[in-house]
Amino acid sequence: MEEIERLWSEVRELSLGNTGTVERLQTPPTPLQFLRDFVNPNKPCIISNAINHWPALSLWAHHQAHQAQHSYLSRSLSSSTVSLHLTPSGRADALAPLPSSPSSLCFASAHVQRTPFPDALRLIASPDDHPSLVAYAQQQNDCFRSEYSALANDCDAHIDWATEAFGGALPEAVNLWIGNHRSHTSFHKDHYENLYAVVSGEKHFILLPPTDVQRLYIREYPAATYTYSSETGEFDLEVDEPVRYVPWCSVDPFPPPEKLQEEVSKFPLYFNGPKPFQCTVKAGEILYLPSMWFHHVRQSSADGGCTIAVNYWYDMQFDIKYAYFNFLQSIHYPSLRLPLPQKFSQETDSDPHSLLLS
Amino acid sequence: MEEIERLWSEVRELSLGNTGTVERLQTPPTPLQFLRDFVNPNKPCIISNAINHWPALSLWAHHQAHQAQHSYLSRSLSSSTVSLHLTPSGRADALAPLPSSPSSLCFASAHVQRTPFPDALRLIASPDDHPSLVAYAQQQNDCFRSEYSALANDCDAHIDWATEAFGGALPEAVNLWIGNHRSHTSFHKDHYENLYAVVSGEKHFILLPPTDVQRLYIREYPAATYTYSSETGEFDLEVDEPVRYVPWCSVDPFPPPEKLQEEVSKFPLYFNGPKPFQCTVKAGEILYLPSMWFHHVRQSSADGGCTIAVNYWYDMQFDIKYAYFNFLQSIHYPSLRLPLPQKFSQETDSDPHSLLLS
Repeated sequence: MEEIERLWSEVRELSLGNTGTVERLQTPPTPLQFLRDFVNPNKPCIISNAINHWPALSLWAHHQAHQAQHSYLSRSLSSSTVSLHLTPSGRADALAPLPSSPSSLCFASAHVQRTPFPDALRLIASPDDHPSLVAYAQQQNDCFRSEYSALANDCDAHIDWATEAFGGALPEAVNLWIGNHRSHTSFHKDHYENLYAVVSGEKHFILLPPTDVQRLYIREYPAATYTYSSETGEFDLEVDEPVRYVPWCSVDPFPPPEKLQEEVSKFPLYFNGPKPFQCTVKAGEILYLPSMWFHHVRQSSADGGCTIAVNYWYDMQFDIKYAYFNFLQSIHYPSLRLPLPQKFSQETDSDPHSLLLS
Repeated sequence: MEEIERLWSEVRELSLGNTGTVERLQTPPTPLQFLRDFVNPNKPCIISNAINHWPALSLWAHHQAHQAQHSYLSRSLSSSTVSLHLTPSGRADALAPLPSSPSSLCFASAHVQRTPFPDALRLIASPDDHPSLVAYAQQQNDCFRSEYSALANDCDAHIDWATEAFGGALPEAVNLWIGNHRSHTSFHKDHYENLYAVVSGEKHFILLPPTDVQRLYIREYPAATYTYSSETGEFDLEVDEPVRYVPWCSVDPFPPPEKLQEEVSKFPLYFNGPKPFQCTVKAGEILYLPSMWFHHVRQSSADGGCTIAVNYWYDMQFDIKYAYFNFLQSIHYPSLRLPLPQKFSQETDSDPHSLLLS
């Protein structure tokens, strides 16, 4: 449908640029500039020198394995218990083979384990000690202001120029993320305006604007959850009961080399379409990730240790842009559908066709 | 196509409201409020008490016929020549029966006559003296800063809070409009952000958001222009040569009663769809008319004289909203097309099908 392909090009030609890069500001914008040049056109940017005044920038640095136990963070949170996400592969909230039918995929959530913070940090800071266990301290439920309240004075409670731009209300949620290079976050979008501040290490984003929704082949997958046995050190992945389906992006931008050809032919609109936007956000920088943008996130750290970030979710405006997005998403495209998933082996009341549709 | 109808409802439910009314502010907004609450969501508003400090508000009032000749405006512009738009019906830049084939329509432009201002004002201020001649002093080419420069001190050169919101650049064009109740402006949209200030009398707007583009049945019509003979007092309407086609809205929201049924059945998406937004902008008020909104305008004046307005066109952002609009417009709908126009009698090189498509 050539109209949709024209939309992908036009939004790049008019507003986002064709180079796949994200504009970088050397200092924070005024609220008015931010609103006019980025929020209104729904356009990402990176702001350098945005959090130079945060104590966190020096206090939270350097969490290699041998230092983790005696670090500022471990001392500050010595009596705190946090939500630790455990997976065998570093891919939580991502597609994985269905245990009962490995040629089909499910939407797999992590095993979430309440863990004393110093133990959690030790696991995260030594990514190579446990080849089949990846730990990620994160919980997108405002965890920075609850589980991590001991760190409240290390960062600003909100991003002042953004708060003013968005109308004065404080963020709906502030989340802390402590992970290592083994954790990836798969393509998804959030119904929030997002200010994503990196405190230690680097985050690598792949971004697609909401206009490109059809390029991600959103389909319904049965929800499943990992369970981890600390005794055997092994993971089980089981489909949630009662069965429910989660609409999720089908595209993995980094398939293993042996699967690349197959993935390219299954998802040609992603792999052969306009170049996605790519950026690396370094310690001390903030990414403005506009509402409804699809994002895939990886992380790294020069010293092989932790990458730490704090993100601020502000309410988005549900306005004409959102209505246009829903309209676009309602249009059936591509006509080349994904092959019908293998019949899901468990009994279910759901309409089997619901697997097919975005 | 029910997806498009859902778009019409959703933009109203989420952002614009379902009552068909336009929000009214009692004082001018701050630049940030204006940007966040109206420009960003592409949502109109009326601002009362916005131009109380303009000398024009008192100086330009009361231009009934018997006062026109001795008025402040006639004195200030006694040696100015202005562009006066003359039509037999008050409908310039509007559809009219093709002279050579009255069952087909053309896009008719006014006879534009350079006229000494006092004569122009006399004609406009006595709408009932010449039943088949309607005069409208207007020219959308920045006329307020050229033809009417003698009035520059009576109004602000720009709307300061809007200029700041839009990024600091002065308006691209400032236009003056002096008309009477016999002139209508047919449905159209502009590629500008528009601040429309009424100085004397009242303007009555019917507004439709850009999401509703298909409800206006934009089709290509052959361009034609009136010529007026002051000797015979009669108009001629002739198709422009070489023939060119203008895409224009087919809907007249106020058809004559005897044609109403026919118009409703030709344009059901307009007449049977969600209620258009309607508002009256009074002397002293500004309408923010967002870019790409379709508008139809009438005017009235308590004393039967002139309605006078100044509008400021600011550059719009060609961003994701504009790309979405173009995508929406590219979708063929309704499947019920207008009947093929009668074959246009003049010879033309154009593809006859171009008449059909929006």
